[in-house]
Amino acid sequence: MSSINLKNLSMTVFGESHGKMIGGVISGIPAGFEINLDKIKKDMERRKPGRDNLSTTRKESDEFEIVSGLLDGYTTGAPICVLIKNSDTHSSDYSDIKNKPRPSHSDYTAYLKYNGYNDIRGGGHFSGRLTAPIVCLGNICKQILEAEGIKICGHIYRVKDIYDKSLLTANESEINNLFESEYPYIENIKDDIEKLICDAKANEDSLGGIVECVVFNMKKGIGGPLFDGLEGKLANLIYAIPAVKGVEFGLGLEFANSFASEVNDCYEIKNGEIRTITNNNGGILGGITNGEPIILRAAFKPTPSISKEQRTVDVKNMENTTLKIKGRHDPIIALRAVPVVENMLAFGILDSIL
Amino acid sequence: MSSINLKNLSMTVFGESHGKMIGGVISGIPAGFEINLDKIKKDMERRKPGRDNLSTTRKESDEFEIVSGLLDGYTTGAPICVLIKNSDTHSSDYSDIKNKPRPSHSDYTAYLKYNGYNDIRGGGHFSGRLTAPIVCLGNICKQILEAEGIKICGHIYRVKDIYDKSLLTANESEINNLFESEYPYIENIKDDIEKLICDAKANEDSLGGIVECVVFNMKKGIGGPLFDGLEGKLANLIYAIPAVKGVEFGLGLEFANSFASEVNDCYEIKNGEIRTITNNNGGILGGITNGEPIILRAAFKPTPSISKEQRTVDVKNMENTTLKIKGRHDPIIALRAVPVVENMLAFGILDSIL
Amino acid sequence: MSSINLKNLSMTVFGESHGKMIGGVISGIPAGFEINLDKIKKDMERRKPGRDNLSTTRKESDEFEIVSGLLDGYTTGAPICVLIKNSDTHSSDYSDIKNKPRPSHSDYTAYLKYNGYNDIRGGGHFSGRLTAPIVCLGNICKQILEAEGIKICGHIYRVKDIYDKSLLTANESEINNLFESEYPYIENIKDDIEKLICDAKANEDSLGGIVECVVFNMKKGIGGPLFDGLEGKLANLIYAIPAVKGVEFGLGLEFANSFASEVNDCYEIKNGEIRTITNNNGGILGGITNGEPIILRAAFKPTPSISKEQRTVDVKNMENTTLKIKGRHDPIIALRAVPVVENMLAFGILDSIL
Amino acid sequence: MSSINLKNLSMTVFGESHGKMIGGVISGIPAGFEINLDKIKKDMERRKPGRDNLSTTRKESDEFEIVSGLLDGYTTGAPICVLIKNSDTHSSDYSDIKNKPRPSHSDYTAYLKYNGYNDIRGGGHFSGRLTAPIVCLGNICKQILEAEGIKICGHIYRVKDIYDKSLLTANESEINNLFESEYPYIENIKDDIEKLICDAKANEDSLGGIVECVVFNMKKGIGGPLFDGLEGKLANLIYAIPAVKGVEFGLGLEFANSFASEVNDCYEIKNGEIRTITNNNGGILGGITNGEPIILRAAFKPTPSISKEQRTVDVKNMENTTLKIKGRHDPIIALRAVPVVENMLAFGILDSIL
Repeated sequence: MSSINLKNLSMTVFGESHGKMIGGVISGIPAGFEINLDKIKKDMERRKPGRDNLSTTRKESDEFEIVSGLLDGYTTGAPICVLIKNSDTHSSDYSDIKNKPRPSHSDYTAYLKYNGYNDIRGGGHFSGRLTAPIVCLGNICKQILEAEGIKICGHIYRVKDIYDKSLLTANESEINNLFESEYPYIENIKDDIEKLICDAKANEDSLGGIVECVVFNMKKGIGGPLFDGLEGKLANLIYAIPAVKGVEFGLGLEFANSFASEVNDCYEIKNGEIRTITNNNGGILGGITNGEPIILRAAFKPTPSISKEQRTVDVKNMENTTLKIKGRHDPIIALRAVPVVENMLAFGILDSIL
Repeated sequence: MSSINLKNLSMTVFGESHGKMIGGVISGIPAGFEINLDKIKKDMERRKPGRDNLSTTRKESDEFEIVSGLLDGYTTGAPICVLIKNSDTHSSDYSDIKNKPRPSHSDYTAYLKYNGYNDIRGGGHFSGRLTAPIVCLGNICKQILEAEGIKICGHIYRVKDIYDKSLLTANESEINNLFESEYPYIENIKDDIEKLICDAKANEDSLGGIVECVVFNMKKGIGGPLFDGLEGKLANLIYAIPAVKGVEFGLGLEFANSFASEVNDCYEIKNGEIRTITNNNGGILGGITNGEPIILRAAFKPTPSISKEQRTVDVKNMENTTLKIKGRHDPIIALRAVPVVENMLAFGILDSIL
Repeated sequence: MSSINLKNLSMTVFGESHGKMIGGVISGIPAGFEINLDKIKKDMERRKPGRDNLSTTRKESDEFEIVSGLLDGYTTGAPICVLIKNSDTHSSDYSDIKNKPRPSHSDYTAYLKYNGYNDIRGGGHFSGRLTAPIVCLGNICKQILEAEGIKICGHIYRVKDIYDKSLLTANESEINNLFESEYPYIENIKDDIEKLICDAKANEDSLGGIVECVVFNMKKGIGGPLFDGLEGKLANLIYAIPAVKGVEFGLGLEFANSFASEVNDCYEIKNGEIRTITNNNGGILGGITNGEPIILRAAFKPTPSISKEQRTVDVKNMENTTLKIKGRHDPIIALRAVPVVENMLAFGILDSIL
Repeated sequence: MSSINLKNLSMTVFGESHGKMIGGVISGIPAGFEINLDKIKKDMERRKPGRDNLSTTRKESDEFEIVSGLLDGYTTGAPICVLIKNSDTHSSDYSDIKNKPRPSHSDYTAYLKYNGYNDIRGGGHFSGRLTAPIVCLGNICKQILEAEGIKICGHIYRVKDIYDKSLLTANESEINNLFESEYPYIENIKDDIEKLICDAKANEDSLGGIVECVVFNMKKGIGGPLFDGLEGKLANLIYAIPAVKGVEFGLGLEFANSFASEVNDCYEIKNGEIRTITNNNGGILGGITNGEPIILRAAFKPTPSISKEQRTVDVKNMENTTLKIKGRHDPIIALRAVPVVENMLAFGILDSIL
């Protein structure tokens, strides 16, 4: 089901890459919040394809329309539905792959699950395009959190051997800069990353990457033990974003390289408040927030659609064949995914504190 | 809530480390399966504390009693409840920490959430001891899966700079050996790992680690796009295991270091079946299984309870202080966690195919 | 949340009576079913306002558009979204009631819950108009059930002292006639009922009524004990229809007037099958279907909006006042609710057998 | 699944009538409430079999043990598990019915669902005995609600043609008396009802009945439109009680006999508060509470197990036969069900206001 019911909020996403429109519904948003459509637009812009050389050349205006749940700019408490029309669709590009599943894409598994009835054009309902309504609806959550003083921000943490500074160790001014920055980097790695991406594109190839996100000023005591843990809840949401293959909190997998004496987050009184000296646990202990920033990293695989010739099979004739994927594809998903991770996180965090 | 309702199965876990008993209930198990109690015992044995020098010296017989849902050894379709008595509890060990939260443990966050009413002895309901009923109930799922030909097996993938071979690249005979092996290693790393652990113990310290698990012969076409993805569902369950801080599938975070042309899983016909040549996606594409083995890795942080003196605060008097934790603690959680990850996975996988 | 996640299907409904459009999304519908839009139209027609003297004079074309999840007339397995534009809205009619809650309507409770931010025009999201997408999406379920041989049909069981024959005692030809009939009555009560309604309308009043529905050829063994019972699941859905105040199965409340010896459903072999001789339990025992027709009755209260002067309060000035409701209102909800109950039932039943 | 996850609370029930023990777990109860075990005992006593001539002669001490989630009498926030041993089991009584389903009981449908593997002794997991842990765990909710000033009370509303006064029209002193009363009647109908029951028992027969319950001092603004309505949520829970066949709110089915002008709940200012003059909607409008008492009625069918000879079938040999049920059975379920309805309601109401 492309729908999730959390404790207080639910989100439903619908549509296909080359259908008439895509959209989504968020339910459970409290009444009385003034929603700033420009803020939504700004995050939609960050996610949008075709805005520079670094993404697919598919041009989508991505104009959204909110058709319910808002009155005079304020939330009414009723479900908020957003619609986004599809425009720049080249469906003929996909005729070739009807029976030839693209490697590492959902084509073959969707074929298995839907007996071939799924809409294959542009990946259909599996398209990364479905993250557009998530950004739009999640941004409403992000705005409500901001009104509560809770801020969410992400950046590119790693592509190949280029690493940005981690939010685990960034200082306050670096973090503030990131919130203001047009580009999702703390350190001065923009040119290096862009060169990597351009090279990959030139090579008809694509890159993976890691997005790191932080939730600042998180409320304390949110979450619970075992199946009520906040990490599991957030990981479940982040894995709903296409192409995510790993989710970690705080030091994450690096804990395997550590002694407790090196990584335990000891306590101290700071300005009259109980704080941890380090934040290796990324703000969550025993599934419950301790008030330190929540640090989450999500690993994205390289866009599976590349123009290089690849081995595949013809599922109708059951024979080996090869495929050169036409169409316009992103040389890196992770870059456009930064606002997706932020806003999906906002959805999960808002649900947790309502 | 220490209870989760999946699509077909639900699991509820209850009890505290130093209470009268702990236990759990699984609901939705189909009727008519013969349950082998010895198989449950064997996995309980693998998880049990005090069985060698490599874990806490707390001795728990961990004898379990199934009090419902079985009749003449067969499942009846009614909920199955397991009870496990606590015996070797030294509650006095915890008097010291009542107001001094142990660093990186749940003490402080539980204190925040429960206003100090939570049972702090041995971590109370947050104790790793609560994984015992999970092993017991999950093993029932594992047995039913085995009857369907689906096999689940885990091993230690990494501790510090010692790596086991990944199941992503292991050959068939290595995998078969692992299924039969008494120890959770593919390669000959047992002595090295044990030396690391003994050293950590001698240093009053503890180690993190990564558990890798595989699901063999998984059914194809299980899962779905977006919020119905199998990765999110499984990650949510794995994060319910105390001390997990990262969950990844297939190449996981290493995708960030890759070009699509290197890691895409191309297709070929093998023995009349459509198979991928590599399995970098760990058996899941677009949230749906493709029939290749599911490969999941879970990172465990080092046991936060160490005997070394650590900085903490007195939450009553709001002042800085230090703490030397008494009691008996594991020098590494990951080792005993292998059967926990396996059986929690079994719970999620069985739910998905019912 | 205006969204529900059942085991296999989810439904989300959005929009307000006087907003731009209303709509809904159903997720989890299997791929490969051919959907007949004319059948949807027919049920939409049965629910539509303004089609005769017996309902509100609001005229709504109720043209629906399915914007996702269908390809060449077949379900793709992706979520199906339906949009219905609002047209004939007279929002000025509602200015008077902004601060004067209409008795027995949701105005006051919505005001409490949403702090006055809810859209009050036409009842906003609480409007009976929101049943239009339910009919549309539920009808997709009804069509899939029909393909499985499971048929759902409803009629008016009672208005004041006029009773239709119960489906509990109707014979086969009566039931077949009902399935074909344009009007929702088994017996010849159409004129009497319509006279009652016209009189109520003339008196600026409205009527309650009971809708009875049957599910024929239901699969056996569906449901479960306690919280998994089919009655609770269906009742929960039926209560989501505005104005429902009672839901009963089989003899329902009349069981309170019975001895077991009179009403127990004894068994007999009929045509080689185990059948009950009577069906007082309405096809469900211990929460599980026994293969007999499911019989459900839902009681609808009279449309609370009547033109007669009524006592109310001014919530701003906190003083007693009176209200004469302008606008166009139904003299009876139950009549137009028949297809709503049928299709909501279809949603619940399809979920149960998938 | 015999487990339900509400928004804040979950409940799991396990065990069989003639197994070793039955029990249940409630999760999500806030920490820091002092639980009065005597109050639980009192409600267990009201539900207990064998306490007078009016119920089954099976004698069960129904001693319960709470094994988790309480520390020094206070809730810890961890799941609360209650265990109740079975003692007076006469399993031989059931040998006869192994292949002869008792009419109107769950025997046949359980047989269908579980392929004959279910525990048939005493109805197994379908036994009314499973309501004992519900009373116990629900009573914890009732106590927490009482601490908030919210009180829940039930009585027998109808058996055959004997009606008690409805709580819809009872005055304050009558209601207060009911809260204090040992017997669940407002008016002086105890002797008449008991005579009815004794006669039914003497005739080897049993009676149905209606339980009516009230929730006093309910918070306003709880619930929501459509699938979030409080009526659906509570009805779903009440239908989880074995033998319930109808659930209605306020006037319920009688709305079908009414004009809006007669039954609309008009508003007035009373002691500075907005109140309804009547409460025909039973405290819920548009799925949301208005602060008036919630009035719910649940219809129970007659105990299906009667000693009279009844027609049934032999499911093994597929032939018609008859059955005289041995064993000890209640002549009326409704009477012992009063505390069950109260405490199940308490579970639902507490969840809604947390």
